[in-house]
Amino acid sequence: MEFDELNAEVQEFCERRDWEQYHTPKDLAIGLVTESSELLELFRFKDLPEQSDLLADSETREDVEAELADILFFLLRYADLYDIDLSAALERKLETNRARYPANEYRGSNRKYDE
Amino acid sequence: MEFDELNAEVQEFCERRDWEQYHTPKDLAIGLVTESSELLELFRFKDLPEQSDLLADSETREDVEAELADILFFLLRYADLYDIDLSAALERKLETNRARYPANEYRGSNRKYDE
Amino acid sequence: MEFDELNAEVQEFCERRDWEQYHTPKDLAIGLVTESSELLELFRFKDLPEQSDLLADSETREDVEAELADILFFLLRYADLYDIDLSAALERKLETNRARYPANEYRGSNRKYDE
Amino acid sequence: MEFDELNAEVQEFCERRDWEQYHTPKDLAIGLVTESSELLELFRFKDLPEQSDLLADSETREDVEAELADILFFLLRYADLYDIDLSAALERKLETNRARYPANEYRGSNRKYDE
Repeated sequence: MEFDELNAEVQEFCERRDWEQYHTPKDLAIGLVTESSELLELFRFKDLPEQSDLLADSETREDVEAELADILFFLLRYADLYDIDLSAALERKLETNRARYPANEYRGSNRKYDE
Repeated sequence: MEFDELNAEVQEFCERRDWEQYHTPKDLAIGLVTESSELLELFRFKDLPEQSDLLADSETREDVEAELADILFFLLRYADLYDIDLSAALERKLETNRARYPANEYRGSNRKYDE
Repeated sequence: MEFDELNAEVQEFCERRDWEQYHTPKDLAIGLVTESSELLELFRFKDLPEQSDLLADSETREDVEAELADILFFLLRYADLYDIDLSAALERKLETNRARYPANEYRGSNRKYDE
Repeated sequence: MEFDELNAEVQEFCERRDWEQYHTPKDLAIGLVTESSELLELFRFKDLPEQSDLLADSETREDVEAELADILFFLLRYADLYDIDLSAALERKLETNRARYPANEYRGSNRKYDE
């Protein structure tokens, strides 16, 4: 994956439209929630075989891709505007989760660490 | 940004815990919604100066980074398990949005294209 | 169910704290999303038997009740501040859905009307 | 507000369509999140005067009412199927919040109790 160029395109897209004024920390979080919720709505009330069928359907698959793209768009925008290093953040989170969820203890388990 | 290695770490983290069984299209979307919502909750009822103060506070800033990392984690997991090319998806979305939101028409405007 | 008195308590609770200033249409919607998402998070990655077990567990059950109460709180607040007749709105929605989802056609079906 | 009759209509609507099988604790929570998110999306990137304008516009106002109705629909369905007394739950929550947010201490404050 090569995000540097894409990231530059996202920022340029927003700058050319002068949208920084709308991209507050709260409204970008709203962007992330609402796009994730649109993704989720595609699978509402659907069981697992139906979820697979939906992903095999080319039209729904395009919808899924479009929603994931919207999420990535807002994620890159958040990181750029508020100076967050996404790679470093994910690296730290993985370290935290390796400690919270030791592999030998949580293999095949869906318990939450604080459950 | 260098996501290839991080992406490999995310997948390895999940495989070592045998979590693929929980990562259905619906539940990964739930992951994205719930983590985005936790990010949003940090700014609930806060006005713009308060949002800036929150991002300047090192503790809240760490919370923001951790939530964005969780979102990226689920995004990379979705793409990997369901064979979605995030870069291509975002590239297509940007093309769509360049057509929907011509820069000269939407500069400084927060109208939705279908409003 | 007797909501009139409860509704009056909700409004009095907010008025005594002078919280109307925070209860904008956007922030009350954030309240609804974030509380619903906390409810959802209780069931993340859980299959149906696990969901039943969670509802049978008195501690989780209290959590579920508390989240549903938060949702009702924000719903009553929205209706009161922005002058919305919830009963009439639901009555209209039921009429719409009776037309969209004829019982004989949608019995045992989870298709969406526009699917 | 008179919810008893409406509540009966909601249950009958679902029973006539045999939808109980889809209304798991997780999927009803998804219903609440996705409808709340649709409400929120109406106000995305909008400032306070714009939010007021939107509520004064009869078309958006109908959208707001329809989303609030959907939220109430899923709330009543949740309570009915999983045997939750919404009035009692809200009464308890108000008691909790009266203790967490003493009126004299939280008047005009948007701090969270654990902030």
